[in-house]
Amino acid sequence: MVFGREGAFLADLLQSISVRSRRLLGRAGAARRDEQLAIVELAARLISSRGEASGVALARRILGKWEALDRAERIGWFTTLAVDFGPDTRRLNTAVEAWLKSPSPAVATELHGAAEPFRQELFRRINLAPGGTAALVAMREALLVDLIAHPELTPVDADFVHLFSSWFNRGFLLLKRIDWSSPADVLEKIIRYEAVHEIVDWNELRLRLAPADRRCFAFFHPQMPDDPLIFVEVALTSGVPTAIDGLLSENRQPLNADEADTAVFYSISNTQVGLKGISLGNFLIKQVVEELAREAPNLRNFVTLSPLPGFADWLAEETNRPGSLIDAIDSDKRLAALDGDTWHIDKAVRATVEPLLVKAAAVYLVSAKSLDGRPLDPVARFHLRNGASLERINAFADLSPNGVHHAHGVMVNYRYDQFTIEENHEAYVNSGRIACSPAIRRLAGVDRRDRAVSSERQERPVP
Amino acid sequence: MVFGREGAFLADLLQSISVRSRRLLGRAGAARRDEQLAIVELAARLISSRGEASGVALARRILGKWEALDRAERIGWFTTLAVDFGPDTRRLNTAVEAWLKSPSPAVATELHGAAEPFRQELFRRINLAPGGTAALVAMREALLVDLIAHPELTPVDADFVHLFSSWFNRGFLLLKRIDWSSPADVLEKIIRYEAVHEIVDWNELRLRLAPADRRCFAFFHPQMPDDPLIFVEVALTSGVPTAIDGLLSENRQPLNADEADTAVFYSISNTQVGLKGISLGNFLIKQVVEELAREAPNLRNFVTLSPLPGFADWLAEETNRPGSLIDAIDSDKRLAALDGDTWHIDKAVRATVEPLLVKAAAVYLVSAKSLDGRPLDPVARFHLRNGASLERINAFADLSPNGVHHAHGVMVNYRYDQFTIEENHEAYVNSGRIACSPAIRRLAGVDRRDRAVSSERQERPVP
Amino acid sequence: MVFGREGAFLADLLQSISVRSRRLLGRAGAARRDEQLAIVELAARLISSRGEASGVALARRILGKWEALDRAERIGWFTTLAVDFGPDTRRLNTAVEAWLKSPSPAVATELHGAAEPFRQELFRRINLAPGGTAALVAMREALLVDLIAHPELTPVDADFVHLFSSWFNRGFLLLKRIDWSSPADVLEKIIRYEAVHEIVDWNELRLRLAPADRRCFAFFHPQMPDDPLIFVEVALTSGVPTAIDGLLSENRQPLNADEADTAVFYSISNTQVGLKGISLGNFLIKQVVEELAREAPNLRNFVTLSPLPGFADWLAEETNRPGSLIDAIDSDKRLAALDGDTWHIDKAVRATVEPLLVKAAAVYLVSAKSLDGRPLDPVARFHLRNGASLERINAFADLSPNGVHHAHGVMVNYRYDQFTIEENHEAYVNSGRIACSPAIRRLAGVDRRDRAVSSERQERPVP
Amino acid sequence: MVFGREGAFLADLLQSISVRSRRLLGRAGAARRDEQLAIVELAARLISSRGEASGVALARRILGKWEALDRAERIGWFTTLAVDFGPDTRRLNTAVEAWLKSPSPAVATELHGAAEPFRQELFRRINLAPGGTAALVAMREALLVDLIAHPELTPVDADFVHLFSSWFNRGFLLLKRIDWSSPADVLEKIIRYEAVHEIVDWNELRLRLAPADRRCFAFFHPQMPDDPLIFVEVALTSGVPTAIDGLLSENRQPLNADEADTAVFYSISNTQVGLKGISLGNFLIKQVVEELAREAPNLRNFVTLSPLPGFADWLAEETNRPGSLIDAIDSDKRLAALDGDTWHIDKAVRATVEPLLVKAAAVYLVSAKSLDGRPLDPVARFHLRNGASLERINAFADLSPNGVHHAHGVMVNYRYDQFTIEENHEAYVNSGRIACSPAIRRLAGVDRRDRAVSSERQERPVP
Repeated sequence: MVFGREGAFLADLLQSISVRSRRLLGRAGAARRDEQLAIVELAARLISSRGEASGVALARRILGKWEALDRAERIGWFTTLAVDFGPDTRRLNTAVEAWLKSPSPAVATELHGAAEPFRQELFRRINLAPGGTAALVAMREALLVDLIAHPELTPVDADFVHLFSSWFNRGFLLLKRIDWSSPADVLEKIIRYEAVHEIVDWNELRLRLAPADRRCFAFFHPQMPDDPLIFVEVALTSGVPTAIDGLLSENRQPLNADEADTAVFYSISNTQVGLKGISLGNFLIKQVVEELAREAPNLRNFVTLSPLPGFADWLAEETNRPGSLIDAIDSDKRLAALDGDTWHIDKAVRATVEPLLVKAAAVYLVSAKSLDGRPLDPVARFHLRNGASLERINAFADLSPNGVHHAHGVMVNYRYDQFTIEENHEAYVNSGRIACSPAIRRLAGVDRRDRAVSSERQERPVP
Repeated sequence: MVFGREGAFLADLLQSISVRSRRLLGRAGAARRDEQLAIVELAARLISSRGEASGVALARRILGKWEALDRAERIGWFTTLAVDFGPDTRRLNTAVEAWLKSPSPAVATELHGAAEPFRQELFRRINLAPGGTAALVAMREALLVDLIAHPELTPVDADFVHLFSSWFNRGFLLLKRIDWSSPADVLEKIIRYEAVHEIVDWNELRLRLAPADRRCFAFFHPQMPDDPLIFVEVALTSGVPTAIDGLLSENRQPLNADEADTAVFYSISNTQVGLKGISLGNFLIKQVVEELAREAPNLRNFVTLSPLPGFADWLAEETNRPGSLIDAIDSDKRLAALDGDTWHIDKAVRATVEPLLVKAAAVYLVSAKSLDGRPLDPVARFHLRNGASLERINAFADLSPNGVHHAHGVMVNYRYDQFTIEENHEAYVNSGRIACSPAIRRLAGVDRRDRAVSSERQERPVP
Repeated sequence: MVFGREGAFLADLLQSISVRSRRLLGRAGAARRDEQLAIVELAARLISSRGEASGVALARRILGKWEALDRAERIGWFTTLAVDFGPDTRRLNTAVEAWLKSPSPAVATELHGAAEPFRQELFRRINLAPGGTAALVAMREALLVDLIAHPELTPVDADFVHLFSSWFNRGFLLLKRIDWSSPADVLEKIIRYEAVHEIVDWNELRLRLAPADRRCFAFFHPQMPDDPLIFVEVALTSGVPTAIDGLLSENRQPLNADEADTAVFYSISNTQVGLKGISLGNFLIKQVVEELAREAPNLRNFVTLSPLPGFADWLAEETNRPGSLIDAIDSDKRLAALDGDTWHIDKAVRATVEPLLVKAAAVYLVSAKSLDGRPLDPVARFHLRNGASLERINAFADLSPNGVHHAHGVMVNYRYDQFTIEENHEAYVNSGRIACSPAIRRLAGVDRRDRAVSSERQERPVP
Repeated sequence: MVFGREGAFLADLLQSISVRSRRLLGRAGAARRDEQLAIVELAARLISSRGEASGVALARRILGKWEALDRAERIGWFTTLAVDFGPDTRRLNTAVEAWLKSPSPAVATELHGAAEPFRQELFRRINLAPGGTAALVAMREALLVDLIAHPELTPVDADFVHLFSSWFNRGFLLLKRIDWSSPADVLEKIIRYEAVHEIVDWNELRLRLAPADRRCFAFFHPQMPDDPLIFVEVALTSGVPTAIDGLLSENRQPLNADEADTAVFYSISNTQVGLKGISLGNFLIKQVVEELAREAPNLRNFVTLSPLPGFADWLAEETNRPGSLIDAIDSDKRLAALDGDTWHIDKAVRATVEPLLVKAAAVYLVSAKSLDGRPLDPVARFHLRNGASLERINAFADLSPNGVHHAHGVMVNYRYDQFTIEENHEAYVNSGRIACSPAIRRLAGVDRRDRAVSSERQERPVP
């Protein structure tokens, strides 16, 4: 960073801040206003030359002040970042002119450099503070909240995304097994962030981790050793499970790893809101499949037991739509039985309803698409994009109030087959093709040539 | 990455490669040509959607092929990166137009994103391979060689610099002590990369690391645990040393850490050519000072014992320059004695020469400047920029052939004072001021108000 | 081990077992009897030559069978050990004769060797099994239970004590800090074994470990890395605390380590019943004092806040004893107020009772002795033997039902002074002297010359 | 330890020391005499009660003084240990009487305890010093030297053996792989202690550890983490090697682990003289076989390539013995060619001699026995006792001066077969049977029924 330019930038910056601050901070008390000016000044100093020598100390002070900001001040801080810590516009304009006159790789590079906002360097230097990486992830978490009302802060978010994509590159992440000998400060985060099947306390956590037929894996970043970024919980079973109750039952007899033929990924959870959009998990499952295959060579099936969170809503709407996908399946409206509270206790009703329910779920998963042409169901989107295939639909698999309410008790197994993961992924991403078992294909009424592409709508490639 | 755009890019890319390849690879045999096409195709696939699923495998194959390239093929590869893996020009032009029409933070962000070359994403994905980070650093090392004859590859280098600045952010580096219980594969790199005082074999290495009065510290990156990136060797002594011989003498009686009052940084070495220009070491010394101060509270002095590699050359030239800085010191040309081979053995000559030599060295360090206004001596530039001050000049301090040849046997102590490091650094960077002890100031004939800025030349701020 | 002797021994052993087994196991079913014979046969093979080659496998099988024994069978096993795995009596008798004829160091050594029971070698070889050390500690725990009804098993216990004294030599133990980043399988043992102030769940555990003003240290054996053997919980405070409530209050503002001047050892717990009598903890506190003094140089006081578990019982009895130690203090029987349920709520009663209570407690701690001349109070015995001194008595310090019931709410601070620990320990062990603060001495009515030795009873040196 | 007894012991001890010291130390100067008294007094204090509180400090001081003793003083120290730190004879005599009157397990236990010399407790307490375990092992190393001239010190050695057998129980040892990333302070011990094929410097060490087809494993004790106790070097090869040269050749193309079918244990070395007689290594090889089988499932052969250190001497003697085992093989004295210097260079001689040489070596290994009935060859004893079998004899396998001098260039492969190790071991230990391949059996002229037991001599079971 050349001093002259930087000096000018700094002078400009401090000038513009002092003007803006009067406006922005009009209603704050004088003391608070000074606080806000202070954090911006520290930031300006941090990206100046002095920052090089005293970076750690400055970065630590900035984070200390940041944590004390209230909501309004926080928005002030982000606004300053968006407006004042952008690129050097003089340099940028010069580069734009050069590009218009004679485009070349070298000029493109200068253009890229000139367009880089000072924010990025600022964030890189804040990262010098102990715990800086985690603090910046938390800062973005706050920004994501503020962004809803303040879309003008989007450029700040773009810089976080740019940096985090580099910093959390999968080449830097460590896959670690989590078990009952893991540190408590890591384990409490498993309790806190488990998003699929709640863990109520440490005793329940122990049941998820300690038995011989349970596994848990997480990605970690070297700079955040106490914070699992994403984790998956696995049950080793004999046979592919068809219901969640037995799977998590405390009273089951735990298997030894070499007695199991199936690994069930029954829960996968992100922990860091501040890393939204940074792809971490895509292939966590793929890597865990490799790890488990090495450890327990007897494993034959790698499957999930997954919810269908949007199924009940879709079914309700679809049933009432003239010419719906459901008409053919349920012309006599037997699925109306599902409206009652107790249908799943009544054996006769269950027998009547089961085949329809399974068929409807297959149609939902295979043919119900959102406007972008992707499956309507978010869990299906996640696993299909990861290269899994739809394996089996299980009625009466989750009869908890939640399970009945959202999916009439239905759950689905997705299969991760080491040999087709990449092909499935590519076919899905490039042409929207959904990989299915023959049984599902039959249920959904699509044939092989269709490749599970529904006939009504024209697919658009999936982003 | 939206498929449509990416698809078009990929089609274009493969097209342009096949055309170019004929030209570039005209003289290579068909088999080699296929090899080169193969690595480029793998690279194209890696940044396509498929790369997401099979990234690790693709990245590993690219690195395998890369290592087998010969020099000409390597230049072909870099050229392809420069020309074909640049930014998406359609998107870039659109962004440029938007900027010209109405500049805003959001448009600047889009401009920055649009100007980002595909190379950067390619490098990020190559990083997925085991050992990917080290391999990319080695790739840049090769590029730096090729760059001399091929300046058109500079944009590729800029992308390496951009990524490495992010990846090797000091917030991610680990300071580790290196001692005789460190792994042999780390230690052999200390032997290989020691740049100041050669280590001839493992016995000598042991003498540098094992005694109670030796320390060595290095920065490591988590992804390259066997590779110290930069390291500093330290001797604990009683009093500030004035010569290198006694300092490294095998026959000295080692001190206990609590008997020492001085830590001498007598050697600092970079190991990774591929990280040239990425600032790692600036404040390695500063951090080591803190570490040592904690471990051994009796330490009072933190100094170097450093060479003056350009002194002899400068003195020869300066002596012959009419009106030179030396005239006043050595009007009677007594320094001419230094031309002989054996002057430093002759006691009488030594006595005559010593005061002149010390004075000349002081002038050299304080007043001899290169065109950019910075000190001529590269070691001085390094330490002064780091915030050290010039402490003392020692004649007859390094009477090895090397030391006599380059600096007439003179060495210098720079002092790292925890309380003035930042101030010194800032004054040096912002106004070129060189921090000196009073003794040096007197020797060099500058007074305090001068702040060691020579009167003849107008300082330019230092980049 | 010479084959001939061993062979004869083995033949004898198997013979005697088969005879005895009929008697011992008369009522067991045939299958169970075979089981018991099986474990003894495995044990015989393990100490035979074969044991050398297949030791690990044999040891593992013995432990597997041991764990399946029921109570009666277990006693059978221990009886076999006591009777059949004793020393080689022929060799022993020969050695005894040699000793009687001409005693010498060499003959003493042979006598020692000849008297060593085969049990010791058997235990050493069982230790080869993975987890063998922990299993043997558990085996002794079972033996201690059986010993009550079967004193003839004492020789077996003596061998455990002999081995464990060697294996758990403090030179082999590791002092480790336990905190909120410790493994959960270690932490659950802290919950389970906390003996002084119960930890009800993981949230409470977190409050004991995570705040900046809490510490916990434990001794570990390298072969039992998940099992803290003994641990001490420490609170850092400002000033010496006088009551337990504030000390453990969840609502206190945690101090930083450098703000505290006092370290309070408020709980110390053994975890392994099977290590009873093996001295582990004596100087755990001493070592922790050194550790804390290093970490937080501002600490001035190292004290406990300890219960007086036998105080209420003693006081009740003593009050009724004619010519008791209490008469002088409470001639007007005001302490009778303590009999009520609510005396500690009534302010006036508190004021009346406090000085008497404190005085009585001082007498109890300093002058009440058991038949062996040691203090009656077990906690006092522990800390005084460790070299602590009696510092202060606190009325109304533990008003929990437990605290009121056993000690009328009184607690005591013992002080660990680095400079007097050894002298106090030695004086206590050699001459029964109890180290006291002047205040306690005054309260107890002893003067310095008495060195807190009560006048009524003749002290016996303390074992 | 009861004070009374201990007190009396201590008084006696100090008395006897002061008398003896005058005699023993008559010629030493007064200052040295005080030194020696000092260490004994420290030892006496260490086993007194005070030792409990200040054990670490006392133990450290004793070791400091011990290291400064000269040879004569050292013998004085060991003599004091032998004479004055024996058992409490009063207690021992009482126990002997009790045993004579009525022997019982309980009395045997008391007899064992009473016969235990105070030395053992002294050593246990010296172990409290940092580095105490290693220092005690070194102390025994010195004792083993002094023992030659001072057999009366044998009781002291017996106590070392007793303690070390307990402390270095294989259940406490850790098997660790040693490779090029091991700490340098461990690796320098590999260089120092390699006893079979010398390692001249670090470059050669690297060739033994770093290539993909090399392995090295060692046992460590937790308290001596820098000191491998015993280590074995392994080469992975394709096929069983017949000569040492190719095996260690620097120019070979290293195999990947999965290309190898054979693991060759070509060197096994003890490092600690002070642990002589403590069985560490017996089953190091067995455990390494298991480790390698897990890591590289393609391995089929686990063999050694071993020297026959006594072969040439035996052959010279045997040839001249009337009616020798060699007569039948070499009736025409063709083996006399071996006397020349250059026989192994002369092709014709090699061809003549080879079949005789191989046959003679087979006879040597299978039939040549020492007086105790065990094989004459020490390396054979080691591997056969470990459960290996004689596999193949290789002429011209080690043509180094050493190899030719001691064994006429012959080497032998022993085979470690996981399924017969225990059976072989037991047969060897119990009945002296030597396990052989059929080829060796034929060469040695023994048939299966003989089980390689020579007919001339009556075997005695092997200790």
